[in-house]
Amino acid sequence: MGKDRISSGIPGLNRLLDGGYIRSRSMLIVGGPGTGKSILTWHFLFNGLMNDENAVLLSLDQPLDLILSDMANFGWDPREAVENKSFSILSGTLNLVPNEIGFEYMISFDHPVLREQPFTIPRLAELIRKKASEIDATRIVVDGLGPLLELAGNRFEIRQMVYSFIRELARDKRSLLLTHELRTGINAGNDEMPYFIADGVIKLDMLYSAGDYVRTMRVIKIRGTSHIMRPIMFKISDNGIEAFPDARLPE
Amino acid sequence: MGKDRISSGIPGLNRLLDGGYIRSRSMLIVGGPGTGKSILTWHFLFNGLMNDENAVLLSLDQPLDLILSDMANFGWDPREAVENKSFSILSGTLNLVPNEIGFEYMISFDHPVLREQPFTIPRLAELIRKKASEIDATRIVVDGLGPLLELAGNRFEIRQMVYSFIRELARDKRSLLLTHELRTGINAGNDEMPYFIADGVIKLDMLYSAGDYVRTMRVIKIRGTSHIMRPIMFKISDNGIEAFPDARLPE
Amino acid sequence: MGKDRISSGIPGLNRLLDGGYIRSRSMLIVGGPGTGKSILTWHFLFNGLMNDENAVLLSLDQPLDLILSDMANFGWDPREAVENKSFSILSGTLNLVPNEIGFEYMISFDHPVLREQPFTIPRLAELIRKKASEIDATRIVVDGLGPLLELAGNRFEIRQMVYSFIRELARDKRSLLLTHELRTGINAGNDEMPYFIADGVIKLDMLYSAGDYVRTMRVIKIRGTSHIMRPIMFKISDNGIEAFPDARLPE
Amino acid sequence: MGKDRISSGIPGLNRLLDGGYIRSRSMLIVGGPGTGKSILTWHFLFNGLMNDENAVLLSLDQPLDLILSDMANFGWDPREAVENKSFSILSGTLNLVPNEIGFEYMISFDHPVLREQPFTIPRLAELIRKKASEIDATRIVVDGLGPLLELAGNRFEIRQMVYSFIRELARDKRSLLLTHELRTGINAGNDEMPYFIADGVIKLDMLYSAGDYVRTMRVIKIRGTSHIMRPIMFKISDNGIEAFPDARLPE
Amino acid sequence: MGKDRISSGIPGLNRLLDGGYIRSRSMLIVGGPGTGKSILTWHFLFNGLMNDENAVLLSLDQPLDLILSDMANFGWDPREAVENKSFSILSGTLNLVPNEIGFEYMISFDHPVLREQPFTIPRLAELIRKKASEIDATRIVVDGLGPLLELAGNRFEIRQMVYSFIRELARDKRSLLLTHELRTGINAGNDEMPYFIADGVIKLDMLYSAGDYVRTMRVIKIRGTSHIMRPIMFKISDNGIEAFPDARLPE
Amino acid sequence: MGKDRISSGIPGLNRLLDGGYIRSRSMLIVGGPGTGKSILTWHFLFNGLMNDENAVLLSLDQPLDLILSDMANFGWDPREAVENKSFSILSGTLNLVPNEIGFEYMISFDHPVLREQPFTIPRLAELIRKKASEIDATRIVVDGLGPLLELAGNRFEIRQMVYSFIRELARDKRSLLLTHELRTGINAGNDEMPYFIADGVIKLDMLYSAGDYVRTMRVIKIRGTSHIMRPIMFKISDNGIEAFPDARLPE
Repeated sequence: MGKDRISSGIPGLNRLLDGGYIRSRSMLIVGGPGTGKSILTWHFLFNGLMNDENAVLLSLDQPLDLILSDMANFGWDPREAVENKSFSILSGTLNLVPNEIGFEYMISFDHPVLREQPFTIPRLAELIRKKASEIDATRIVVDGLGPLLELAGNRFEIRQMVYSFIRELARDKRSLLLTHELRTGINAGNDEMPYFIADGVIKLDMLYSAGDYVRTMRVIKIRGTSHIMRPIMFKISDNGIEAFPDARLPE
Repeated sequence: MGKDRISSGIPGLNRLLDGGYIRSRSMLIVGGPGTGKSILTWHFLFNGLMNDENAVLLSLDQPLDLILSDMANFGWDPREAVENKSFSILSGTLNLVPNEIGFEYMISFDHPVLREQPFTIPRLAELIRKKASEIDATRIVVDGLGPLLELAGNRFEIRQMVYSFIRELARDKRSLLLTHELRTGINAGNDEMPYFIADGVIKLDMLYSAGDYVRTMRVIKIRGTSHIMRPIMFKISDNGIEAFPDARLPE
Repeated sequence: MGKDRISSGIPGLNRLLDGGYIRSRSMLIVGGPGTGKSILTWHFLFNGLMNDENAVLLSLDQPLDLILSDMANFGWDPREAVENKSFSILSGTLNLVPNEIGFEYMISFDHPVLREQPFTIPRLAELIRKKASEIDATRIVVDGLGPLLELAGNRFEIRQMVYSFIRELARDKRSLLLTHELRTGINAGNDEMPYFIADGVIKLDMLYSAGDYVRTMRVIKIRGTSHIMRPIMFKISDNGIEAFPDARLPE
Repeated sequence: MGKDRISSGIPGLNRLLDGGYIRSRSMLIVGGPGTGKSILTWHFLFNGLMNDENAVLLSLDQPLDLILSDMANFGWDPREAVENKSFSILSGTLNLVPNEIGFEYMISFDHPVLREQPFTIPRLAELIRKKASEIDATRIVVDGLGPLLELAGNRFEIRQMVYSFIRELARDKRSLLLTHELRTGINAGNDEMPYFIADGVIKLDMLYSAGDYVRTMRVIKIRGTSHIMRPIMFKISDNGIEAFPDARLPE
Repeated sequence: MGKDRISSGIPGLNRLLDGGYIRSRSMLIVGGPGTGKSILTWHFLFNGLMNDENAVLLSLDQPLDLILSDMANFGWDPREAVENKSFSILSGTLNLVPNEIGFEYMISFDHPVLREQPFTIPRLAELIRKKASEIDATRIVVDGLGPLLELAGNRFEIRQMVYSFIRELARDKRSLLLTHELRTGINAGNDEMPYFIADGVIKLDMLYSAGDYVRTMRVIKIRGTSHIMRPIMFKISDNGIEAFPDARLPE
Repeated sequence: MGKDRISSGIPGLNRLLDGGYIRSRSMLIVGGPGTGKSILTWHFLFNGLMNDENAVLLSLDQPLDLILSDMANFGWDPREAVENKSFSILSGTLNLVPNEIGFEYMISFDHPVLREQPFTIPRLAELIRKKASEIDATRIVVDGLGPLLELAGNRFEIRQMVYSFIRELARDKRSLLLTHELRTGINAGNDEMPYFIADGVIKLDMLYSAGDYVRTMRVIKIRGTSHIMRPIMFKISDNGIEAFPDARLPE
């Protein structure tokens, strides 16, 4: 019995993945700043929309207009899909607001209905799942776990809630892509995100060679299947990500 | 007086181990994400079932249906063994649930009877031992100590309980395999799991060579016996793990 | 649809950025001490003033007279622009002042009206936005997040407020440049500033080669666009920064 | 005036030590998992028994039956010595047991009389000294300081008590061997055990060379004597440890 | 408009600095133990005295008699200058003295009038500024921020006060030299002193080459001016520091 | 005016030091375990006794009989000097003893009169100074600051007291030698002992070369004098330390 595969929207990556992401599972995309994590998720989202798979995108890194403008750079325009309810974008920022007994977390959503509600992490998971149900989405992207983990700091309870958040989202058996920005620098504490939280992990990287940087991606893990382990090169152009599974990496 | 050996289910690894794991002892399998820890334990479990040794598997990393689907990838189907009570799978997730005085840990088991019980680590050990007694299991696998140690965070008491948990399981003199995911990256704090907790340690790794990764395994320690110390290569294919004790590692 | 670009004031850097910074977005300039972060922002400010784009500069690192004197070194004199209200400089120092219940943060501004007010980080954001509105500024520079983050220490709440501060400033869709001094030394804890906080990141560095240091700059990330990834050389002379996108870096 | 030497039971190590351990002093044996620390102490114990020097062994790492089985692997059988009271083995595990005000440490001894007593570290030292007095032992081995230090965690008082424990044992002028498992990995926090606590330190290691590991031992320190400083090779076979002071280490 | 320069008292360093330190600004001298930080400041002080620029020296590292004796080693005798009030030396040690509610910091000054006063960091800044006013000093040296930062430990408030201390001293527009001893060793936590606190930073170092050490100095940063970035060699002889800006560093 | 020098008792080291230690100053001897710190101090002590300079030795690492036995190994016998009151040895161990409100530090001295007194660090300084006064000692050795700093742990107040302790001892202008054991291993936190606390620092080390270790010593710092900076080789034989300032170090 083979796995049911779902296209990443990037042919070269599909080959690396032996056909695509595994349907109904979670995949964590990690990489330093500027390695192309968001663009990788957009390929996944628009591939879905083109194949009548509805999608939900949550971004706590940037406001809706910037997301739209950045997608447009690569020729993607989600506005029609949003209007006919095949695509739902939840964007906003997490803020710390003082109250009587200390502080309270607020998510300021760009969405007109949701604006300025006091949100907790469990309610965020609930919101995403509700949105996904409403539009019958099979693909979910959470772009940027960073702001949620920043909230955690060293607070054990909140970190646990982020893990619960991921587990909650994984429960409905929708295909789930999560991105997490690795810090650069030799002492960056990247261990705050254990990889066992997801069913698979892809790492995006930059390789310095002869005065320039080459972009690479590598499948670190996919549960329960064999996969190609070597890093492959990719480029980001006006068409988004193009991966080259056959090209030789510079030494 | 020689040790009583028990097959790992992987011929090449048996050779490395001078015949197999030592019966009635505990073995810790460590390795980064995607190194094949779960698959290694499945060889052990199904080798047992084929030789009329009953088995218990605890997994807090993923739900039952994913485990079954992943095992099927390699041609293993445990459903018959589960039905005739030679195999028991305890799978579920650990969650943090608020109560009046703070937080409480819940294990949500996939098992119909066990679902949503408030569980503590000592009760988890008790449950596994009870299950093992019920089906007269001689092989126990705990796949993923990560979620238990995550619970611990910096809390000394819970970490101690995880150690007690391992000691409890070791008490019945069943053969015990534990897996623990090492974090990647140079600053990963992997020292949260002291190796003296188990009777033996095997480390799975990936070795980068000429643009690709080669899988290696190495016996780091087995109490009270000499063993082959060098790392050997292995592959993961549709038949699971195949180890090559005679192949030369790339420089 | 292409991005609306805004000149950095440095021709070579504009080429690296495919035309300039992206208008109405935030850019983080990081680098060790003495790498030229302030000078880089002055090019941006005076390029704006020459093109009738008004600007606000906040500096908590040094007093007004030193800033004026240092700008003069490179031939820039902002005094006329300040007088005719196309440029506003907010400079001062953060101080810790004891009160009855502990300590209170004071910003001692050089500005005659603002001197010695007890300021909080949210009020600082409010002040900058108000100044920007008053003079209709489209370019904002915050030179030195260090003092704000120093205040944070390990205090989670204040660090969160610094992030909120950046998000607040980004809200008005003015073009925003932030500088942050990376600590030198192999164990410097530079991870206190996650890069996802800004839309783009440029890193200034020094490369040791054959007994001397060569200055380099590199675009680490710009959201939603492709960009040149390789580091390029630059010099600081009496005319400020001159970047050489075509020069070959020493090995 | 020369030191009174006491055989380590390993001829090659005796040569490294200029005749053997120094009588009536403490020696700390450190090394990663699987480096042979326990076996090294068994040579010392059985050499004593063969020369009418009685001995006490404390192990908090594993139960009595495993110890006996592991010793048997190398041809050592201590049962007769235990019966005629020339050898005393104290084995057990440390457990954390909740009580009304928090937690309490219990040592579960395998010994029938001692089973399940609530023990503190000072009482453990007292017990060992009492046992040593009863059988007139001149050699004491504490195999595995790890569990005691684990108890300490970051708690200053307990760590101090472990040091006091060692000092207490050293007070009776019996020859004392302590083992401590160093953690592997580049960030392992091995500094929890300062070496000034013992009169001498031997480090066991593994050296990777040409695809295999070579075992090495090195005398790091012996108070008040000169000694051979270079690492030497050793092997573990069915006869236990054989050291080769004259063999050349691989580069 | 060029900067007003002030001689460092070391011709080779003046060349590196394009004429000397910048008048009325602060300069931080960092380096490991024994790199010559104190001697570098003495050149600055005695160059001032020879040119009728009065000076204040604060040292919390060593008592007055040792300072005088060490200066004499290089042929400097400040006693006449002290007597005719062109030079003021404040030397002493910081001590922790218990009081009813905890501890209190005492500075034991060698100065007869100041001896044994309970001093706080703000009062120390006030004292230095008062002394500088009394003798109309234009050059101030604080030799050793270490004891002040030691006091801080992890206490946020005291560390902030040390920064305030530096800012206070910088306020009077006297030329200010500060020294800070960097810890040796790869894990030394040198990041406790952010460089943005001063207008310029010079680093003294030792370079191991062919069995010996070569002394080097490097200007890491000077605000608002270009400067020579490469490290240059220097020697310490009976005449103090001699710098060689033209000599080639060993590879 | 040259410094008054005092022989280290080791001719080769005297040459490195330009004649010897500086009289009436403090010198810190640092090095890993087994590098010869104690032996280096014994040369200093017995050189004093031979030249009619009385001496005090404090050791909290080991009891009196071991010290005497170890000194005898190198042909030194201090017993006559102790009897005629030209030499005073204070040896003992620091212990943590529970009392009603927590814990209390006890120094168990080997000295018959001093045995088992509850001692604080200030009283320890007082005791040494009193002993030094009684026998008119000009040389003081504190062998092993480790136990005192261990007491400190992360407790700021005790660490400050250790620094005060050193300052107290330095106050009487006796020549003072302190030893401190550096931890081995790449992550050892050796920064707990800032070098500015002493007037000079000598580091003992071991250099691995061609399968063996070579002992080296290096003067890291001496306040206010030039000195030879390069590391030199030394040996420990039955005559103690012999240093070779002219020998070439292996590459």
